[in-house]
Amino acid sequence: MSGMWGDNLKLSIFGESHGKAIGIVIDGLPGGITLDTEYIYKEMQRRAPGKNKLSTPRKEKDQFEILSGYFNNKTTGTPLCAVIYNTNQRSKDYEKTKSIIRPGHADYTGYIKYKGFNDYRGGGHFSGRITAPLVFAGAIAKQILEKKDIIIGSHIKSIGEINENSFDAVNIEGGFLKEIISKDFPVMDDEKGIKMKNRILKAKEDMDSVGGIIETAIVNVPAGVGSPFFDSVESKLAQLLFSIPAVKGVEFGAGFDITRMKGSESNDEFFIEKDDIKTYTNYNGGVLGGISNGMPILFRTALKATPSIGKLQRTIDIQKRKNTEIKVEGRHDPCIVPRAVPVVEAVAAIVLLDFLIEKDGIPWMI
Amino acid sequence: MSGMWGDNLKLSIFGESHGKAIGIVIDGLPGGITLDTEYIYKEMQRRAPGKNKLSTPRKEKDQFEILSGYFNNKTTGTPLCAVIYNTNQRSKDYEKTKSIIRPGHADYTGYIKYKGFNDYRGGGHFSGRITAPLVFAGAIAKQILEKKDIIIGSHIKSIGEINENSFDAVNIEGGFLKEIISKDFPVMDDEKGIKMKNRILKAKEDMDSVGGIIETAIVNVPAGVGSPFFDSVESKLAQLLFSIPAVKGVEFGAGFDITRMKGSESNDEFFIEKDDIKTYTNYNGGVLGGISNGMPILFRTALKATPSIGKLQRTIDIQKRKNTEIKVEGRHDPCIVPRAVPVVEAVAAIVLLDFLIEKDGIPWMI
Amino acid sequence: MSGMWGDNLKLSIFGESHGKAIGIVIDGLPGGITLDTEYIYKEMQRRAPGKNKLSTPRKEKDQFEILSGYFNNKTTGTPLCAVIYNTNQRSKDYEKTKSIIRPGHADYTGYIKYKGFNDYRGGGHFSGRITAPLVFAGAIAKQILEKKDIIIGSHIKSIGEINENSFDAVNIEGGFLKEIISKDFPVMDDEKGIKMKNRILKAKEDMDSVGGIIETAIVNVPAGVGSPFFDSVESKLAQLLFSIPAVKGVEFGAGFDITRMKGSESNDEFFIEKDDIKTYTNYNGGVLGGISNGMPILFRTALKATPSIGKLQRTIDIQKRKNTEIKVEGRHDPCIVPRAVPVVEAVAAIVLLDFLIEKDGIPWMI
Amino acid sequence: MSGMWGDNLKLSIFGESHGKAIGIVIDGLPGGITLDTEYIYKEMQRRAPGKNKLSTPRKEKDQFEILSGYFNNKTTGTPLCAVIYNTNQRSKDYEKTKSIIRPGHADYTGYIKYKGFNDYRGGGHFSGRITAPLVFAGAIAKQILEKKDIIIGSHIKSIGEINENSFDAVNIEGGFLKEIISKDFPVMDDEKGIKMKNRILKAKEDMDSVGGIIETAIVNVPAGVGSPFFDSVESKLAQLLFSIPAVKGVEFGAGFDITRMKGSESNDEFFIEKDDIKTYTNYNGGVLGGISNGMPILFRTALKATPSIGKLQRTIDIQKRKNTEIKVEGRHDPCIVPRAVPVVEAVAAIVLLDFLIEKDGIPWMI
Repeated sequence: MSGMWGDNLKLSIFGESHGKAIGIVIDGLPGGITLDTEYIYKEMQRRAPGKNKLSTPRKEKDQFEILSGYFNNKTTGTPLCAVIYNTNQRSKDYEKTKSIIRPGHADYTGYIKYKGFNDYRGGGHFSGRITAPLVFAGAIAKQILEKKDIIIGSHIKSIGEINENSFDAVNIEGGFLKEIISKDFPVMDDEKGIKMKNRILKAKEDMDSVGGIIETAIVNVPAGVGSPFFDSVESKLAQLLFSIPAVKGVEFGAGFDITRMKGSESNDEFFIEKDDIKTYTNYNGGVLGGISNGMPILFRTALKATPSIGKLQRTIDIQKRKNTEIKVEGRHDPCIVPRAVPVVEAVAAIVLLDFLIEKDGIPWMI
Repeated sequence: MSGMWGDNLKLSIFGESHGKAIGIVIDGLPGGITLDTEYIYKEMQRRAPGKNKLSTPRKEKDQFEILSGYFNNKTTGTPLCAVIYNTNQRSKDYEKTKSIIRPGHADYTGYIKYKGFNDYRGGGHFSGRITAPLVFAGAIAKQILEKKDIIIGSHIKSIGEINENSFDAVNIEGGFLKEIISKDFPVMDDEKGIKMKNRILKAKEDMDSVGGIIETAIVNVPAGVGSPFFDSVESKLAQLLFSIPAVKGVEFGAGFDITRMKGSESNDEFFIEKDDIKTYTNYNGGVLGGISNGMPILFRTALKATPSIGKLQRTIDIQKRKNTEIKVEGRHDPCIVPRAVPVVEAVAAIVLLDFLIEKDGIPWMI
Repeated sequence: MSGMWGDNLKLSIFGESHGKAIGIVIDGLPGGITLDTEYIYKEMQRRAPGKNKLSTPRKEKDQFEILSGYFNNKTTGTPLCAVIYNTNQRSKDYEKTKSIIRPGHADYTGYIKYKGFNDYRGGGHFSGRITAPLVFAGAIAKQILEKKDIIIGSHIKSIGEINENSFDAVNIEGGFLKEIISKDFPVMDDEKGIKMKNRILKAKEDMDSVGGIIETAIVNVPAGVGSPFFDSVESKLAQLLFSIPAVKGVEFGAGFDITRMKGSESNDEFFIEKDDIKTYTNYNGGVLGGISNGMPILFRTALKATPSIGKLQRTIDIQKRKNTEIKVEGRHDPCIVPRAVPVVEAVAAIVLLDFLIEKDGIPWMI
Repeated sequence: MSGMWGDNLKLSIFGESHGKAIGIVIDGLPGGITLDTEYIYKEMQRRAPGKNKLSTPRKEKDQFEILSGYFNNKTTGTPLCAVIYNTNQRSKDYEKTKSIIRPGHADYTGYIKYKGFNDYRGGGHFSGRITAPLVFAGAIAKQILEKKDIIIGSHIKSIGEINENSFDAVNIEGGFLKEIISKDFPVMDDEKGIKMKNRILKAKEDMDSVGGIIETAIVNVPAGVGSPFFDSVESKLAQLLFSIPAVKGVEFGAGFDITRMKGSESNDEFFIEKDDIKTYTNYNGGVLGGISNGMPILFRTALKATPSIGKLQRTIDIQKRKNTEIKVEGRHDPCIVPRAVPVVEAVAAIVLLDFLIEKDGIPWMI
């Protein structure tokens, strides 16, 4: 099993990097929502490859076609299916080396799980390309959340060792987030951004790659979203964040740093002002006991360096069952972090919408 | 929703810290498994409070009673329900301050979500006490996994700023893990362990608390366990790990540190030796593309300091809707990390068993 | 898998007829509902054995104990667990014949599925006794539904060949339903009821048993409940109705008779009167395209004769693998239909509440 | 919610009768299965319209295109998506009367549920056309089941009042079933078949329609498939059978007739012969306690007459909220029963495969 998710908003994803199409079915949207397709297109462009020299030269317009669930410019309330046809495949790049396992990729694990029958071209179903349909769904969720003024935005917190400040956990606002995500390279400090970009270009030059951290904030989430235990805000967000290829760590609020704090520090003290209940600090990232407390929800997602690199690496030939070497040819990103930003936001939007449907039902969405 | 989980092995948890009982229903075990109740009891004792001065003086024997699904010393194959009766409650401690929100706890978020009707005594359903039934289920899962030689073990990687080395990601073995977890205070370096314990006692003395990191290894997991995307090994583990109260971060393999590595470093290169396929390094923590690769599965879980502290804190009275102060009375742990170790292992065992049932069916379990 | 169900209201059932206890966990109720325990008790008494000579002389008070999720006389919003301890077991009745398969029961299929490890005493987990927790949950659902004036009631449509009229599919009302279900033997025509009871007593005298049909109506369900396809009103109701032991058929509206009607007959024509949209007839049982149309929801459930009979039957000894004979000793019902009435209503109430939570969220329940 | 189903084999359906395409995602198939596309095509042709004068003249080739999950003529193990493009739409037929509710259809209930935003053309997502993807999935399931010699077949038991004998519940064999389903009009008694066809043509001539009953057998299912309660064989089959538009009743074995039998009659007595355990009779339809007993699984599905009829009917105009009349124009089937036969078999195959994966895992499928 791999491709279905959700309780109140259900997703079913499908597709391979070099197959006919990739896509998604979304079930649980009410009838009557007019989609801002321009908004969706923009979100998908944030993820799309081939925009600049920081990313893979594979050009995919990532143009979606809605096959069902949308009629007279409104959702129908029945399952919405969207597909993105693959257009710019160079499958031959992969034929030559199909039994040579690419280190860091899912070539070996996919081969074992599927007994060698998985589509090996460009990673097949394991490709980051399968996140495009998630961005499609996320763009729908994001516009719906904006009806409740809920805004999701991220910045690139680090590329390799280059690091910028964190969001202001207490005072971050939606307008500021929107400003950040409108940037080509979403950072708060553009000078740091230049250094990060240079770090990526350096990796490219070295036929190597580099990782980084994305920090995300969700503002204006009312208190009371989520549940204790299995459906905690952290649990459901983490499940989807770790579904994104290359993610190796997720932390909320102060995250791993909170372990070095005393309770008297990490307990975010409450106060009431007029009728608003807030906390002075926000080391818990807006979530207590698995449930939102009304403060900004904050989390960081750690992504490893793209496994595809031009450098010579030791590996195995899985068919011949012997040791060998590989230089990964083909077109690839020296750093996946910038393109992963809208994916992280998309899954956050999806999870949040799922929670809000449980809390408030569906009528508010229309 | 909060309390049901699972695909192939399903759990349903219930209970409040100061109610009549807490418990769990486990569905999906085959008939014919003899449970080693001594093993279960030991696991539960690892979590139980009141063992020493590092933990809360509330004494709960945590003796479970199996109500169903177990007959003539074997599982029946139908749902197994176990309950643990609460015996040593001092509910009055909580009556006095029931409308005073304890910072860092779920008092406020629970109040909002449940409109003030949740059981506030000792955190109610949000209490760490509800993890006892998870340890019960985990102890069953652990013994079943041992039939495939799969061993799960953890050490306390850090308490506050006191930190010991990480597990050897490549060479860690089951025997070593068992040795570690047999310790009262599971660390590799016992001198570091003493420092950690002193750090906890210092926090207690200060009427404060402290957090820490648990590092866990799972060895002998065959390659091919897990799925891409929503049911990746990381996704399902993270969902349950973040269900544990106080967890604020989860990372696999090199985790957040991997973001500072180049692809040529973090790509674990493969080799074949006799018929074994392995990697030279294990920065990916035994998981590629969401699927196990046969190397040890490694992850770290970040826990915050116990929110219950005797120090004076600013907070609100939720009924009177005004600012106030609180010193949290009652019995509490100055550090939850040692007692959380078996909980982390339990949820890992549960997730892994769920995956193995999907992969291999149920007959091997008996 | 057998024991967990639900989307918006989740159930987890457990227990065996002669084990320590049977019970249920209910997840998804909001906090703040005061349960009318008298109402629950009455519903459970409708199902309880030993009330009169029509049913088994096994006396079980079926007194439930709520272990969690209920505090200060209100639901907490977290999982509610209720157990019913088994008190009046005569397990020895079953020891003697444990390897002799009782025809019509699940002895053989349970033995095969669970490799002989299932609890064979009194049918174990297959016992009709496990429906008691469903009646508990149904009694909660029923009282909540009454807040929307939704009333569920049934009559015994037939016992063996004795048959009474069907409900008036168009004009049936809640008050009439309540009157019917307040009867000890719920029929519309009490003279027919006497004949039915005599039919049951005749079966008892013959050391045989007899089946029957229960017809159920649900009134005041608003139009728009349910979904097309997998979550149609009929699909979800049928899934739970067929979960009740002994059920062999389920039909909605005119059911099997509709197959002999022409479209011009079975198409329930619509009309509008003031602002109410109704149909002149109701052969579709209040459901079109899987969704309620505002007319009474009507269905019939077919139950076979109790398999436990004192007559000599041919069967096998599963251990010795040879042919043998059996007279089923022990206490049993000559007809399960009267006791199944509240079970049928209970699962209908549960399904309907699950649907209404999807449609309207949870706030209306409190 | 409407379109996702399954535990071990998951389905996600989408599409509208007059939209761009209809389709399905199937998740849970292992990698390495070569699909017999000719077999699939034949099954889909059994359901396809426009074949003869018994069905609607709308011609749809129902040619499927596999978009994902299939590579080098084998399943990959990752989600398989197939779409069927709609080609022969005459949407204008529906424009004229879009606010006139067709009696017996989901026009009214869909309008209420989706606030008037559902696609009204040809029933939209409620159309029987959406069963084409189910037949696609069922054809895959059927071929896989044949690896275990499990054969599913149906005959038309009745059309209106014309009725043929039932299958021999004890001795029915796979070869016989295959023979029946290879017929254009699957009946055992072809003379009865001619009468049934005439009954359909008479309905057509009268601008009316007629219903009927489909009886289905599944042979060679091993004992031990299914579970007690919520996942009983009857429960899961019934859920999917009632998902098929027009189904109003489902019964297993003797079904409603069993209610008139005594226990001494309906208890299928067991015997052992060589090493085979069987029952002399099969009134329980191969299922006891929700679990298969190795005898043929037998059930009957009741379908109402097609709601679309050319006769004048009373109804309402939902926009103008006033009474009116309608003659349903457009192309429609005078009887849906013959085209529903492969749909009933398809959902049975899907449910059975889901159960077998739980029982035996996935390796046997390849």
